[in-house]
Order: sequence, then C-alpha cells, then structure tokens
Amino acid sequence: MTSDMGSTQWVYPDLELPPAGEFPLKGHESLIVLNMNGADASIALTLYFTDKEPVELPPVKVDANRVRCFRLDHADEIGVQIPRETQYALRVKADLPVVAQYGRLDTRQQNMAFYTVMGFSS
Amino acid sequence: MTSDMGSTQWVYPDLELPPAGEFPLKGHESLIVLNMNGADASIALTLYFTDKEPVELPPVKVDANRVRCFRLDHADEIGVQIPRETQYALRVKADLPVVAQYGRLDTRQQNMAFYTVMGFSS
Amino acid sequence: MTSDMGSTQWVYPDLELPPAGEFPLKGHESLIVLNMNGADASIALTLYFTDKEPVELPPVKVDANRVRCFRLDHADEIGVQIPRETQYALRVKADLPVVAQYGRLDTRQQNMAFYTVMGFSS
Amino acid sequence: MTSDMGSTQWVYPDLELPPAGEFPLKGHESLIVLNMNGADASIALTLYFTDKEPVELPPVKVDANRVRCFRLDHADEIGVQIPRETQYALRVKADLPVVAQYGRLDTRQQNMAFYTVMGFSS
Repeated sequence: MTSDMGSTQWVYPDLELPPAGEFPLKGHESLIVLNMNGADASIALTLYFTDKEPVELPPVKVDANRVRCFRLDHADEIGVQIPRETQYALRVKADLPVVAQYGRLDTRQQNMAFYTVMGFSS
Repeated sequence: MTSDMGSTQWVYPDLELPPAGEFPLKGHESLIVLNMNGADASIALTLYFTDKEPVELPPVKVDANRVRCFRLDHADEIGVQIPRETQYALRVKADLPVVAQYGRLDTRQQNMAFYTVMGFSS
Repeated sequence: MTSDMGSTQWVYPDLELPPAGEFPLKGHESLIVLNMNGADASIALTLYFTDKEPVELPPVKVDANRVRCFRLDHADEIGVQIPRETQYALRVKADLPVVAQYGRLDTRQQNMAFYTVMGFSS
Repeated sequence: MTSDMGSTQWVYPDLELPPAGEFPLKGHESLIVLNMNGADASIALTLYFTDKEPVELPPVKVDANRVRCFRLDHADEIGVQIPRETQYALRVKADLPVVAQYGRLDTRQQNMAFYTVMGFSS
C-alpha cells in the first residue's frame, strides 16, 4: 500500500560536516528517512557544491515501514566521502513518498550543538 | 466548533530518547499537541523503527481548547516504554485538526542542547 | 499595498517561559512578526493552556514595512503576565498577511540554548 | 533547464547579528541559497527594521547548479554593513526557484548555539 503521507523530493541547502572532534560524541551529520509505504523505497541523493558540478550518489534503499538513518560522514553508507568543513547542499529524490529530516551534531567546543531542519519538500 | 487551523497528520522522522543524565534537567523527548477545536481530539501514535514492524500505541486524548505535552520517556503517558538511545520515528494521526511540535532536551554533556521541529504535516 | 507574501494565522504549540537566570543574557521567549504590507497590521494573540480556558490578549500592532519583536515575558508588551516554567501554546491572528517566528533563549545552565520554529501557518 | 523544485520568495523574520566574540568560531549569520536550475539565479535581498524604512540591497547571484553561502556580517558579500545586536528581518526574492536556509552561530558564552530555519516560502 502506498502511503498518502510524505513527499518524493526533499532539499537541504545548508550542510557542512563538522570536525569529528575528540569528545565521546563525535561531530557528524545525518539524513533520516521514514518510509511509511508497504514497499521499499529507492532514494537518489545529489550533492551540490559551491565550486563544482553536482554529484549523484549511487541509489540507497529504505525498507517498507522502516526508518533509516544515513550517516553522511560514512562513505560506506552513502557511497562517497564528503569532505569535512566544506559547504554543500543535498537533494533527496524518492520513488515513493517519504518524510526526511536532517540533523547535525557539532561538538567542537565540547558542548553539544544541534542543528536540524525538516527541509523543503514538494 | 471545528477549528479551520491544523492538520490531522504529523510526522517526525528523527527521534531518539537521550540518556536521562545526572543533571537536574533530565534528557527527554516530548510531543506537544494543541487542540483548538471545541471538542476533544483523539490521537493515534505509531512508532517506526529501523529493524522491526511499526507499533501502534493505545489512543490518547487532548481536551478541547487545550495544549498537552506527552513525555515520550514516560510509559504511563503513552502506554509503552520506548528504549533509550535507539533511532525511531513517530506518526501522529488525529480525528480533528491539531498542531503538533516535537522537542528534545539533551543534557548528557551538562549543557542544554535543544532539538525541535514542527514536523511534516498534510 | 497588500503583500502577497505571508499568512494571517500562525500557531506555536510548545511554549514555556524559562527562568530568567542569573547570567547577563536572561532566559526569555520572543514572538517576531514581520509586516511587509503598506498598512499597519493588527495582531490578535491567544494563549492556550493545559488546564484552563484560552486567554485572548488585547490586540497589538505591527507598523507597515516593519518587523517587531514581542518579548513574551514582558507584560507591558503583550498585556498579560505569562507564568514562568508553565506549558502553554500561542495562536497569532493578523488582519493582513504577516510572517512570524518564535524564539526561546534558555540560559539556566549558563550556556545558551536556542529553540526556534517558524510555526505552522495557514 | 528550470528546476521544478524551490520557491522564488523566502522570508526570515528573526535576524540579529550576534557579537563576533573572542573565540575561534566567530558569531555570525549566514543565508544559504541553493540553485538547482541550469541557469544562474539573480537574488534580491531586502532588509526590514523595527524603526526605519526597508533597505534593498544590490542584487547578488547564485550560479547554475551551485550552492552559495552569504555571510550577512560581510559587507563585501551583500553590499551593506548590517549593525550587530539589532533586530531585523530578511526577504529573499529570486528570478528562478531556489531553496534557501538561514543559520546563526552565537558563541558569546563560549559554547556554540545554533539557530536555523528553512524560512517561510511562497
């Protein structure tokens, strides 16, 4: 069954991998995608940069009725190594309606600083 | 009177109960639901996980013209004990239009770190 | 000239005045309203609580082509004293389209913790 | 090719340049604009204040298929010096659909405090 709830496009303009830092909670970025459909969803991620052409990542999957967290600093999860401390943007396209959220944890001054948005959907 | 303001579905993809911690302000998550209708609203909550089927919670109620805060770490408020430090997502369905917001307070490194979104509505 | 940009209703479910605290930057909440119209906008604020009837505040004004910040802990700005550390919600109704945002600064553990949402509009 | 994803208007009601502070990460505000179109986008920024007329800045550009970060405390990037610790608002108008996000970093009490919104779009 296809969910009537969600969007097939999500955009996050302000991304930047913080330094991992030396504290137990490492600085990182995550994309979280919820698939409320009865079928698996295929997700196409595109990275945009300030000074070079966009890069399309190999498709990833979110199983039916599951939520999945993609660590954007883990090349083995998204298929590419994103450089740290570099401005970039992310477009998410799905073949089924999903709901996505972005979160960053910055710990470079020891305290935790969260940065999250639902993103822009259409 | 039914309010013309609100939505009957709200979705929050990125939830995770932080450790309670040892500081006076305990780490926790909350769902806040505002019911501006002249009648009580019944709220159905569904939890989504990374590796198991969704779980539907027993319905909860928000009285007419009231706001209610559900502590997601309190089993007596939502009918189930959500595990801490585990990725999950939340869908909110209401029988009347409401406005919902999610908030997390993380105090594991002593300082307060807030994380809030209005969520995705339709 | 009436702006084509904005909304006449904004809702913020999760409000709570933090303690002022003893640090130079006092804990507080603000509602910020931008009026891009060529005429003054009249703003009706309604407070919702967990255990009593909603309270309508005396109307306030935002001048044409101005932004105005309402300190929600200042009774002289909004016409009522909101209790601290008490859950409440806020509905904003305007006679012209405006854009509103809510912000909270919590400094009770010395560090600054921000909490902001654009709110739900219709 | 024109992107079907984005908006030509974005509004941010609650802006205020924090003090730069004495820490390595200086307090600042940024506007990030993603242009997913095959053509360059021209961006018109308007500042709104509490006590004076709006100010239109000279147009700026975001190249095709690029993301660009505008430091709002850098007069050489936006064409005007915005005063620090002063309430203002920002309207973004683009000649092509773009996706914009606002972020503030406040470091005045050493810890990092983030403040971000996608903004209101139409």
